[in-house]
Amino acid sequence: MNKNAIIGQSGGPTSAINSSLAGAFCQAEELGINHIYGMINGIEGLIQNRVIDLKNVICGKPQVELLKRTPSSFLGSCRKKLCESEQNDSDYIAIFKRLKELNIGYFFYIGGNDSMDTIDKLHRYSLKSKSDIKFIGIPKTIDNDLCITDHCPGYGSAAKYIATSMKELILDSTVYNKSSVTVVEIMGRHTGWLTASSALSKSAECPGPDMICLPEVVFDTDIFIKKISSLLSNKKSLVIAVSEGIKNKDGQFICELANKNTKVDNFGHKYLCGTAEYLANLLSDNLDIKTRYVEFSTLQRCASHISSLTDINEAFDTGAFAVKAALDGNTGKVVIIQRDTDLPYSSHPSISDVSMIANKEKFVPDDFISDDKYGVTSDFSKYALPLIYGELAPVFINGIPEHLVIQNRK
Amino acid sequence: MNKNAIIGQSGGPTSAINSSLAGAFCQAEELGINHIYGMINGIEGLIQNRVIDLKNVICGKPQVELLKRTPSSFLGSCRKKLCESEQNDSDYIAIFKRLKELNIGYFFYIGGNDSMDTIDKLHRYSLKSKSDIKFIGIPKTIDNDLCITDHCPGYGSAAKYIATSMKELILDSTVYNKSSVTVVEIMGRHTGWLTASSALSKSAECPGPDMICLPEVVFDTDIFIKKISSLLSNKKSLVIAVSEGIKNKDGQFICELANKNTKVDNFGHKYLCGTAEYLANLLSDNLDIKTRYVEFSTLQRCASHISSLTDINEAFDTGAFAVKAALDGNTGKVVIIQRDTDLPYSSHPSISDVSMIANKEKFVPDDFISDDKYGVTSDFSKYALPLIYGELAPVFINGIPEHLVIQNRK
Repeated sequence: MNKNAIIGQSGGPTSAINSSLAGAFCQAEELGINHIYGMINGIEGLIQNRVIDLKNVICGKPQVELLKRTPSSFLGSCRKKLCESEQNDSDYIAIFKRLKELNIGYFFYIGGNDSMDTIDKLHRYSLKSKSDIKFIGIPKTIDNDLCITDHCPGYGSAAKYIATSMKELILDSTVYNKSSVTVVEIMGRHTGWLTASSALSKSAECPGPDMICLPEVVFDTDIFIKKISSLLSNKKSLVIAVSEGIKNKDGQFICELANKNTKVDNFGHKYLCGTAEYLANLLSDNLDIKTRYVEFSTLQRCASHISSLTDINEAFDTGAFAVKAALDGNTGKVVIIQRDTDLPYSSHPSISDVSMIANKEKFVPDDFISDDKYGVTSDFSKYALPLIYGELAPVFINGIPEHLVIQNRK
Repeated sequence: MNKNAIIGQSGGPTSAINSSLAGAFCQAEELGINHIYGMINGIEGLIQNRVIDLKNVICGKPQVELLKRTPSSFLGSCRKKLCESEQNDSDYIAIFKRLKELNIGYFFYIGGNDSMDTIDKLHRYSLKSKSDIKFIGIPKTIDNDLCITDHCPGYGSAAKYIATSMKELILDSTVYNKSSVTVVEIMGRHTGWLTASSALSKSAECPGPDMICLPEVVFDTDIFIKKISSLLSNKKSLVIAVSEGIKNKDGQFICELANKNTKVDNFGHKYLCGTAEYLANLLSDNLDIKTRYVEFSTLQRCASHISSLTDINEAFDTGAFAVKAALDGNTGKVVIIQRDTDLPYSSHPSISDVSMIANKEKFVPDDFISDDKYGVTSDFSKYALPLIYGELAPVFINGIPEHLVIQNRK
């Protein structure tokens, strides 16, 4: 085994992204790969020659266990989008030059649909330039919006955080003997998988959210106000789960109605905020009722203290499977998860062409959305519930969870 | 033992308020008190004759354990402030009539400084009306602003949530190789105990927040911008902890500068929101830098899935001690916590006159605030760190924590 491996992380972090890194690292080590490099800040760092040898920073099994419990991207991330090599191949030349210098045979990139676009492009360029480097994508996203795969590593832990926090908030909302509406804003620009997961808070002693507003359903503020008013005639305290990305029939984001400055990131995605705040004010003005809003914010993707063991284990296995797939000669592929059974839950990793995932989005299907469009079906719960099963106890030191961190990562 | 006991919960909930209820209930049961009643929604419910027998809803040790892990107020809460009986004694007459009907000898109220005002007034009325009912307050508040007691049950769990979430956010903030400022808003209208607890995120692998803005320190936006600008010259991603209650030199809340409607609750407290959002926008406008804001929101008081074992145990002991104190003949008292040693940490419950706590606030003292006013000292950490020690694992069912709830509490 004389070829080395390199691994990068890209896009927004999840609570499971480092478990995929741990899985890939352990498998590569076990298979005898000499140097297992990490790109600092993804391909952006690779181009800038910012690369480390992972064996120097992940030392032994206890550190692997810490890495699985560490939020954020251990290696740092980037949001760099490669242009097509036909338009400008300077980044490609720089990347393949670096890969050659490091004697890389296997290239792994952990990321979402934008990052899979990077794998797809590098793979296509490798074919064109007769490189024999194997390019494999390892999926991650809290959004669960990747096609083909049954679900995506990172989603289960975010869903567990959301369901747990939602349950705590619902109980908190009943504390006073007064009418009130709590509007909770949940991440998901275009797809409602995370917002739907708020329904998993439902249990014998918790009714779950009273309304769930997904971006897959056109949002009408008049209908919303009427529906809340109607619900309030039967129940004192309501808790509503809304996606940050809900839009009206004209395709306008609801948060834009609040006249906020809407910023745009490198991929042209609008940076959203304030949907719940806007709706809470709207209800307060129209129904003369006490309202509050809660934004789960960045904690959805980094609250690793309440990660899902199922998710962390699948993320690890996905990383490990990518290494095996590459050494088996696969390239231009992405690891996916295939579900065997719901109960008892069982799944296994597999691979698919990365072009089937890159730049595509998977929406919450109609049969997961309730008939009235403001809730989810039991089929959704059957799908999502196994993904939040199990806990991975943090290593607490001085009362707070310990993480594995590269000091002075540069 | 022929006199009965009654327990109520009042004010905002904490993750430990039900552990105090559990402690009082278990102690009263052990001491052979026949009926242990619970007021639904505090004295408001008592006046309305909404009372339950706790032995019907807390059945056996496993349910006691669940109760200790349940956020929100098990019995429901209220924010009712009694007027002085000399002005209007109608509420007093109603309350003492109910207590007589229930053959109450011992009255316990779990709450903050406003609720201790209730205990104080009922006690004074009992002296005037020659009632022999014993009135004992059991302290709770996430704010830790009660006088006399070393600290307050509820604070440790909120602080543990804040320190843990802050650590996760700080790591998340480093993910991109770009300059950014994250402003995190933390509860505390007038006192900075909770905001200060963000410093407990500091550990070998985490630098802690880069700046801590307490309501005890006058906030100057110009100095703030200059300080952030200076910090950015040495560090790429900054995370700032700000109290919701920071004010400028004219005593105006910073969030009011954002021209928001500022509402007032029953006690005349201003209902605040938007401090972090305002500061994030201010920095973005002035320094041309990417900013984001996070509000820890209601989760600070209800995230019982990451409660502090020290806090939960002390809350339990405080409740139990109140019952013993009442049966020993004490009245008009409040249970306090006295610290024996810092390391190893040791404390014990004691009692004090409730009038020493009612309507008073304890501020973060000068020797806990760093010289530059934008951080805390090692003395603060020595004080606060033991309070977040230890974990109480939730009982997970279907991937989420189980709670004990009174069905159809009315």
